[in-house]
Amino acid sequence: MKRIAVFASGGGTDFQSVIDANEKQGFCEIAVLIASKQGIGAIERAKKHGIPSEVFAKADYPDLETLYEKLSSLLKNLSVDYIVLAGWLKIIPESFIKEFEGRIINIHPSLIPSFCGGGFYGLKVHKAVLDYGAKISGCTVHFVNEVPDGGAIIAQRAVEVKDGDTPETLQARILEEEHKLLPYCVKKLCEGKIKKEGRKVTVLD
Amino acid sequence: MKRIAVFASGGGTDFQSVIDANEKQGFCEIAVLIASKQGIGAIERAKKHGIPSEVFAKADYPDLETLYEKLSSLLKNLSVDYIVLAGWLKIIPESFIKEFEGRIINIHPSLIPSFCGGGFYGLKVHKAVLDYGAKISGCTVHFVNEVPDGGAIIAQRAVEVKDGDTPETLQARILEEEHKLLPYCVKKLCEGKIKKEGRKVTVLD
Repeated sequence: MKRIAVFASGGGTDFQSVIDANEKQGFCEIAVLIASKQGIGAIERAKKHGIPSEVFAKADYPDLETLYEKLSSLLKNLSVDYIVLAGWLKIIPESFIKEFEGRIINIHPSLIPSFCGGGFYGLKVHKAVLDYGAKISGCTVHFVNEVPDGGAIIAQRAVEVKDGDTPETLQARILEEEHKLLPYCVKKLCEGKIKKEGRKVTVLD
Repeated sequence: MKRIAVFASGGGTDFQSVIDANEKQGFCEIAVLIASKQGIGAIERAKKHGIPSEVFAKADYPDLETLYEKLSSLLKNLSVDYIVLAGWLKIIPESFIKEFEGRIINIHPSLIPSFCGGGFYGLKVHKAVLDYGAKISGCTVHFVNEVPDGGAIIAQRAVEVKDGDTPETLQARILEEEHKLLPYCVKKLCEGKIKKEGRKVTVLD
C-alpha cells in the first residue's frame, strides 16, 4: 500500500475528501498531515481520523530551506511515496521539488493554464475568473514542477460560471468537483495507473 | 429582423451552422457573406442558400485599411446590424473594430483566456492544447475588441480532450460544439437578449 503525505494550509476540505474516499476504498495509507501552521481546520480533521499531523510553520525556522530540509527528512523517515498538496500556500523551494519530482501533485481551482501561477490562490482565483467574465472555470490536478501551477496535468473538471456568481459561490461549486477529482487522482496515482511522458499524462482505467 | 454579415476565410462550417439554425428558427437575415478570398468553401454555401457573397481579398487592395474602409461602406449600405466572425483569419484594424464596437462577435476554438491571441488559429490552437497536456478545451464566443481574442465573453462550452487525440480529432469534437454555440449566440444577439456591462455579459433566457 502506497503511503502519502497531505500538505494543507487551511480548513482542509480537500484533505477530508481524500480521507473519506480512502476510508471507503482503501487505496493508500495517509502517513501524515503536514500543516502550515497551528490551529488550522485540517489538523482537527486529521485527529478525528487518527492521522498523525505535524506543523511546519515558517516562524519556527530561520528560512524556508531549513523548514523544507526538516520536512524532507520527516517524509523519508515515514517512507512517504507521494505528496498531495491540498491547499498548500507556502512556496516550495526547487530543491524540495526536485527531490520528490514526479511524486508531488497539487490541486488548483481553475482550468490551468487559465487563472493560475503567482498570486492565484483561494478566492483570488475565482474573483479573477468573474472579473474576466469567463463562463467556464473548473479545477485541475497536476504534477508539481518548478513553475507555479505549471506541471503536467493529470485531470481537469469543468464547472459552469453562473450569472450572479460571487467568488464564494463559484468557489463552493468548484470545491464540489475538487472533492471528487482529488481522491480520484490520488487513488489512480497510488494504484500506479498514472503514466507521464513529458507533459502528456495518461490515466489508465 | 436584425441583419447580419458573416465573415469567413475557409470551408465555412461555422457559417453553415448559422444558416441551418436560421432556416429553422428565423432569427435574422443573413445580408451578406464576406469571404477573405475567392474559391473558399463558404462562398459555395452562401450560393446554395441564396445568400449574397462578396470577396475582400488582400491582393485587391493597396493596404488593409483601404480594404476595411470599402468593407465598412458595404456593410453600411446593406444596413448590417451585427458582424459574425466565423473563422475570419485576416487582421482587423482598430478603426474598423471601433466603428462596429459591441456589434462584432467572434468564435474561437478554445476556452479563452487559454490558447488564444496572436498565432492561435485553426489547428495550431488544438496542437497547443495537446502539447500542453490540457484535459479540457472547448470554444468561446466573444465580442471583438482591439485585443485579439480579448473581448468580453458571451458564452463558452467545454470539450474533453481524450487520450490519443490528434489536433484533427480534437478540432472535430470542438467544431460540433461550435456549431451549436455560434447559432445560439447569434440568435440571442439578434433578439436583443445579450447584455454587456464592462466584461460581464449576461445572456437572457
